[in-house]
Amino acid sequence: MRQFVVIGHDAPTTPEFSLDDLAGAAGRLDVLCRCVTSAFFLSHAIREDVRIHLVLADEYTVTFDGNNLRRLNPDERSTGALVRNALEERAEAIGHIPVETSPGVSLTRRGFEATLDAISREGSVVQLHEDGDPAIEVSPPTNPVFVLSDHHDFAAEETALVDEHATQRLSLGPEPLHADHAITVAHNYLDTVGFTEY
Amino acid sequence: MRQFVVIGHDAPTTPEFSLDDLAGAAGRLDVLCRCVTSAFFLSHAIREDVRIHLVLADEYTVTFDGNNLRRLNPDERSTGALVRNALEERAEAIGHIPVETSPGVSLTRRGFEATLDAISREGSVVQLHEDGDPAIEVSPPTNPVFVLSDHHDFAAEETALVDEHATQRLSLGPEPLHADHAITVAHNYLDTVGFTEY
Repeated sequence: MRQFVVIGHDAPTTPEFSLDDLAGAAGRLDVLCRCVTSAFFLSHAIREDVRIHLVLADEYTVTFDGNNLRRLNPDERSTGALVRNALEERAEAIGHIPVETSPGVSLTRRGFEATLDAISREGSVVQLHEDGDPAIEVSPPTNPVFVLSDHHDFAAEETALVDEHATQRLSLGPEPLHADHAITVAHNYLDTVGFTEY
Repeated sequence: MRQFVVIGHDAPTTPEFSLDDLAGAAGRLDVLCRCVTSAFFLSHAIREDVRIHLVLADEYTVTFDGNNLRRLNPDERSTGALVRNALEERAEAIGHIPVETSPGVSLTRRGFEATLDAISREGSVVQLHEDGDPAIEVSPPTNPVFVLSDHHDFAAEETALVDEHATQRLSLGPEPLHADHAITVAHNYLDTVGFTEY
């Protein structure tokens, strides 16, 4: 399985936002929506053995699981609606028990550290870094977990957490990429090196 | 310079479409908008020596030129607005003379064949194909022009035109990608092979 964690620093934690203003009042939810599209869509199929976890303002995490996912379309607006639906059920998310809010989409009341702790038990955390080993020269880990940030850089304490959990530090190329583009390149890297255990 | 041509088979040719329904009544303009974002955005910068040409229903071509581009944001909706603005000036586009409709964005009254004819004089047309040479094993051409299709496959006559103009046939990986993801991977390929002449 391939997993992605994306930190949405300014992302909404309540469903009172407009789908017409994802890039504005919704705290750049457009970035997170594009990450979901990059994580799952192939030309005429969905990548099934993939999960993406959107961390909303360090308070909730919305997880999309390719094995059960339904009703996902590639445009930002419809993905934003799935996140909004998930936030409508936030009162049901008690402790760290996820609530399924639509097929393949669940909401958990946990922030970045708790999400990273949980996922690092299921796979190998990869830190993307400009000084990392060039990805194309390295064999990828089994069950990689890529950690990304939205339009903001990682905060110092977030970087420290990634450092602590990461087993590998990779560079995807010489140019700094948007999170959704990094997901696309990471998939292509894993596809191209013939990584068969995902 | 790197160039991309994207065919929008169902794309609008008049500005009477809603930015709230890019993936529906606007003929999947969301796909073309994401292609623009993939063509230009780096993490905190715009790729300047890039052009992308959106062919709208074989009637108009809207060109975004990174050297002059202003007012581009990464979300689909704002890019859709630039395309809509361009279509508002369509009466000014006479013959094959482009009309600049906002800084770095121009509209030309020409379809796929005329656009491909013009651009193939400025660069080397690359055909992306599952049976092409794996990109990572091949040196890219100088001034590559990648030709892509929206959510539909190329029509037979479009494939014939690409065949006729292409100097190289490449595969970007084993999985068939959405056009915007293919642009991201193509950029990463060109970045990573240290292609310096763009």
